[in-house]
Amino acid sequence: MANLNPSSSFSLLLTVQLPNSPGALSQLLSAIGQAGGNVGPIDLIDQSRDRCTRTIVVDAASTDHQQIILQSVKALSDIELLDAHDRTYKLHEGGKISVTTKTPLQRQADLAMAYTPGVGRICREIADHPERVFDLTVKQNMVAIVSDGSAVLGLGNLGPEGALPVMEGKAMLFKEFGNVDAFPICLATQDTEEIIKVVKQISPVFGGVNLEDIAAPRCFEIEARLQAELNIPIFHDDQHGTAIVVLAALTNALKLVKKPLPSVRIVINGAGAAGIAVANLLKAGGATDVWLCDSKGIVSSDRDDLNDAKRALAVPTAGDLTLAMQGADVFLGLSAPGVVSVEMVESMNQGAIVFAMANPIPEIQPELVTHLVAVMATGRSDYPNQINNVLAFPGIFRGALDCRAKRLTQRMFLDAALAIASLVPDSELSATNIVPSVFDPEVATVVSAAVQAAAKADGVTQ
Amino acid sequence: MANLNPSSSFSLLLTVQLPNSPGALSQLLSAIGQAGGNVGPIDLIDQSRDRCTRTIVVDAASTDHQQIILQSVKALSDIELLDAHDRTYKLHEGGKISVTTKTPLQRQADLAMAYTPGVGRICREIADHPERVFDLTVKQNMVAIVSDGSAVLGLGNLGPEGALPVMEGKAMLFKEFGNVDAFPICLATQDTEEIIKVVKQISPVFGGVNLEDIAAPRCFEIEARLQAELNIPIFHDDQHGTAIVVLAALTNALKLVKKPLPSVRIVINGAGAAGIAVANLLKAGGATDVWLCDSKGIVSSDRDDLNDAKRALAVPTAGDLTLAMQGADVFLGLSAPGVVSVEMVESMNQGAIVFAMANPIPEIQPELVTHLVAVMATGRSDYPNQINNVLAFPGIFRGALDCRAKRLTQRMFLDAALAIASLVPDSELSATNIVPSVFDPEVATVVSAAVQAAAKADGVTQ
Repeated sequence: MANLNPSSSFSLLLTVQLPNSPGALSQLLSAIGQAGGNVGPIDLIDQSRDRCTRTIVVDAASTDHQQIILQSVKALSDIELLDAHDRTYKLHEGGKISVTTKTPLQRQADLAMAYTPGVGRICREIADHPERVFDLTVKQNMVAIVSDGSAVLGLGNLGPEGALPVMEGKAMLFKEFGNVDAFPICLATQDTEEIIKVVKQISPVFGGVNLEDIAAPRCFEIEARLQAELNIPIFHDDQHGTAIVVLAALTNALKLVKKPLPSVRIVINGAGAAGIAVANLLKAGGATDVWLCDSKGIVSSDRDDLNDAKRALAVPTAGDLTLAMQGADVFLGLSAPGVVSVEMVESMNQGAIVFAMANPIPEIQPELVTHLVAVMATGRSDYPNQINNVLAFPGIFRGALDCRAKRLTQRMFLDAALAIASLVPDSELSATNIVPSVFDPEVATVVSAAVQAAAKADGVTQ
Repeated sequence: MANLNPSSSFSLLLTVQLPNSPGALSQLLSAIGQAGGNVGPIDLIDQSRDRCTRTIVVDAASTDHQQIILQSVKALSDIELLDAHDRTYKLHEGGKISVTTKTPLQRQADLAMAYTPGVGRICREIADHPERVFDLTVKQNMVAIVSDGSAVLGLGNLGPEGALPVMEGKAMLFKEFGNVDAFPICLATQDTEEIIKVVKQISPVFGGVNLEDIAAPRCFEIEARLQAELNIPIFHDDQHGTAIVVLAALTNALKLVKKPLPSVRIVINGAGAAGIAVANLLKAGGATDVWLCDSKGIVSSDRDDLNDAKRALAVPTAGDLTLAMQGADVFLGLSAPGVVSVEMVESMNQGAIVFAMANPIPEIQPELVTHLVAVMATGRSDYPNQINNVLAFPGIFRGALDCRAKRLTQRMFLDAALAIASLVPDSELSATNIVPSVFDPEVATVVSAAVQAAAKADGVTQ
């Protein structure tokens, strides 16, 4: 099964002692390979005349598979397994982020400036001139990553503690890719009004709010209300981050098939927060023919089970996903594993574009349809064209914070998408290269610049 | 005026260009000295045959005094003032703390472990085994520093933004002295019930809560309710931090005058959060004769204007502070500048101990009464015997987090005080050395050990 490829998610670090003689390492690696483990970096830790100690990174496909690999190593004579740990667990021990001081406190003078009595001068200054909080505190660069744990990744309602590792990870991405300080706020409530209230109450410390893994439809109201009631940018990444990166990737994919956005018929499967935001941003960007589908089929105007967000996107045609995909130019999956068949892709228009973004298992495995489509993308890092929100949110907040935007606007999202798309020059554009790498250091810079220009155009800077 | 001594709070960094010739620097320093500026470090930045550029730290006594010093430098011929900035403001620009990653994100494998898809395994683990949140997230070492900005230092109700610099400073102290990660939560509400609710709602991320600069009497209910309703330690530093350090210092001061705690009469002036907590902890530690005074005089049982906290401490005697201090062994000031006269100190018992802890200006200036008292302490760093909460709270939380205490107990506070006192060995104990330096690296260690032992004795570890 394709979803059981060895991956870093299930990576082991083995510490082994083996004979310091030719062939010993290859015997070990062969055993690991036969057990299906994929070997990464190998370090030599210690070496005597007879024996040596090495660490070996081995990617497995599951926890069961990890055990199989360990058994195969233990079965080797003359090779001793000294230690083995799951690298993902190890990395999470004690958490992934830290609160650090920007300046050391080494003598009384440091204390007298950073704390009492000197700090009182700064408190007084801010109390007298409230806007100075943006200059003299962390607020200017601090984003709250707020979740109620109700829709954690694709795993469902895991609660606030279960959501915390994702929010810590997000804080890491903010820092590494956007130099934004971000702090996880995981809430012990899933009530819309309570969430709005608590975010407003803690907002004095923050220059922006990133909403994360909050279930639809409550996420829409929370975002809209917070943006109406606070003077700092509010961003629901599951909606807008996804929409921006999809639009960026689609812009480049359409270049390859030479179809303009207003002329194509787009099917979006999945009418949760992401699907609806993608539909809205594509329409704002010029798309004219967008069919949204949910688990009951096409979101059509004759249905009486639609919430407001879906109703605004309803189309006249009724039917199921199979019908929707017949003759479509673009399929965007933000739904569930395996819901698209080869036949459905075959029924699409020539030059079909398929983004199967369900995580970690796509709507259809790319290898099944590469011969049928012009461009294929997924949410995964082990296939080409990864649609990854980290291309958007660090630069969005970098830009919004740097120009002290009061709010985010659709123009910022559209221009951010074009900025991301622009990082793949025509000369490098291909069916397997429609988005820049998340490690491209230009990404946050160009997104930030686009956001700041759009903020000025929209008159939302402070 | 003693409160207009030059200090680091009003420190300037001057960048000056002056002749590279003998006598030029001394001419500059002489001008600064005549203007009353106190010179700190001097650096040589650049040097040519004729001229050199230096930076000079100059402590002033006020912002007006800073201007006087600058004018005196500008008046010098052949010396050019290139730049001058206020070091306290400079240090606060952009805030004082940062959220950093514990491990770099440099390749896809890092992302796959720290973020999706690998992080999903950790989320699942915590959802299935809730206690694992203490192992696999920041919660194990993360403290919320919560303020509503209602009683910021001695400055009053400055609001949440005005309180933020103090809370950032506190986070620095937590990190530098206790290796505790702490994050400022400044609340846009001053309602008791709202504060309790919001702290409970954000509690999933935190292993402890430090309440700070919240006005009395609401601080008492907030602390008590949160401790009753949450399973993590709640600490109101203004109360208990102060009480612990006062008890530590008083323990050593009483050793010097050879009076046991149960035998002395103690007058506490100031019946806010700190005064009441000090009274309660001293009584728990063995004090038998504690007279609390507020702005209306002795908190006596015949008064009908007392809140519950004061009523519990009321004494039979009625009268004013002057009366209270007659024949007292110990005076503890947690009140306001200058409220104690020389005559009042003269009226105390032999071997008088005076802690005048109002900040930044004490209840009485030490130099006025040193000949009348056996031991004098203040809250200031520029006099001997600084009563500074940083001696307590980093170690309190270090210990509570390390043993996963569900709550804090009076035994922890008493033992922490004794641990702090013990760091001044009898051989070094003197009237000007009753507490260890805040920079003594042993402090947090011994406090943490005392807290953990007390937690085990009280059965509150997890």
